[in-house]
Amino acid sequence: MPEERIAPVEVLRITPESTVEAEDVLAVEEPLEIRVAEKPISVTMRTPGDDFDLAAGFLFTEALIRSGGDIDSIRHWGSPNVVRVSLAAGATIDSSKLDRHFYTTSSCGVCGKTSIDAVRVIRSSAPLPASRISRALVQRLPELLAEQQSAFHATGGLHGAAIFRPTGELLRIREDIGRHNAVDKAIGSLVREDPASLPGAILMVSSRASFEIVQKAIVAGIGTLAAVGAPSTLAVTAAREFGLRLLGFVRDARFNVYAGEVE
Amino acid sequence: MPEERIAPVEVLRITPESTVEAEDVLAVEEPLEIRVAEKPISVTMRTPGDDFDLAAGFLFTEALIRSGGDIDSIRHWGSPNVVRVSLAAGATIDSSKLDRHFYTTSSCGVCGKTSIDAVRVIRSSAPLPASRISRALVQRLPELLAEQQSAFHATGGLHGAAIFRPTGELLRIREDIGRHNAVDKAIGSLVREDPASLPGAILMVSSRASFEIVQKAIVAGIGTLAAVGAPSTLAVTAAREFGLRLLGFVRDARFNVYAGEVE
Repeated sequence: MPEERIAPVEVLRITPESTVEAEDVLAVEEPLEIRVAEKPISVTMRTPGDDFDLAAGFLFTEALIRSGGDIDSIRHWGSPNVVRVSLAAGATIDSSKLDRHFYTTSSCGVCGKTSIDAVRVIRSSAPLPASRISRALVQRLPELLAEQQSAFHATGGLHGAAIFRPTGELLRIREDIGRHNAVDKAIGSLVREDPASLPGAILMVSSRASFEIVQKAIVAGIGTLAAVGAPSTLAVTAAREFGLRLLGFVRDARFNVYAGEVE
Repeated sequence: MPEERIAPVEVLRITPESTVEAEDVLAVEEPLEIRVAEKPISVTMRTPGDDFDLAAGFLFTEALIRSGGDIDSIRHWGSPNVVRVSLAAGATIDSSKLDRHFYTTSSCGVCGKTSIDAVRVIRSSAPLPASRISRALVQRLPELLAEQQSAFHATGGLHGAAIFRPTGELLRIREDIGRHNAVDKAIGSLVREDPASLPGAILMVSSRASFEIVQKAIVAGIGTLAAVGAPSTLAVTAAREFGLRLLGFVRDARFNVYAGEVE
């Protein structure tokens, strides 16, 4: 396992019996820009490694190329987060498919720092609202989410997102097959009906905490993001930078504190 | 739980002790097109329900609007899979953010049928290669995947995708924080180095089987998609239409057959 795919991070590991400073190992998340010749085709948040395979597989499974024979060469291009695909003589990318399926950009960011800079443009430097949260409340969050998440129990296929007041009162819970959508539905409901409750609120997700989930929480002024699963490296970096309290592996009365403090 | 979010589907439930025809309940997956006035802003695969919250939350967390006050009204627009957001007087969408973050389209499909039609254009009517597979092999797939997936054990945060020959021989395994990326890396590696092995191969994923994963498998000529988690309704529909064998909840020596046959 190459080092670039995983990275250590300092955490506070809280269980019913103990509170321990520890080192956790997280999956690395960085954007990758795929170019065909000069043209940026896609930016995807990925774990570094096998970038040439990713570029070839993406172009093939999205039917932008017909076979590996359409590719002359693939190489990194000025950055470990940009790959440039050169097509074989006579091969072309069908631009109509491109316009139909993908957004294309060269400014969305080609490293984690650029991605965070993009959030800073949105959020400027306004600090997230300070809110206090007790470990007893955090330990109760998974069951509060699970109690309400009816469709997941039926199907095993839906992600849940719940928003609580800092006191633990449930404000909204939404489910969706897409984890970003579940978060957008929960936040969107409050944006429409009770926006004053968003600043400093707690967002609990049944999934992992990727950079994009952290980004949505920061933009919404959420104070705490608690995830049943693991955060990524870039999620932790962004949370620390913007003062979002980030809790991961929140289950079975245990959790890790990746950013911020818990009383 | 409104009916629209979940739907029944006929499956063959296989355990070490029995093989039973049963009804399973799956999460519904359909595209949603979000428009602001006349302009298509985004198409996302989502579970129907709370569509207005999803539209408002998406616009807000992606910083396209500043607050709920920027929205005058939201309604469905000619289809249950299109919502149209009217902005309040004086409110505008920042198009530079739009170009930076999203692909926009009105032709990507506004119902499941349209999404499947898009695959048909790519794959035309060429049938997927027939391949036989035994239940004993399927029952071994999860451990074959787990044995190789080293980074997941370290971080709990990586999705795995493995490609096997129909005989069970492992060809490729790749991991990524994004489940689409893990699939693209595994397929892309074979596209580059051993494309003849793709037709009829088995793709095993550590995640759920959404429409987009099924779409990638179909385009690559994969014969069998086996998922540790649940498929969506649209994944099952597409698999049956294109002759992809689709197996879900493949774990603990059990699995469900959603499309195709297992010997």
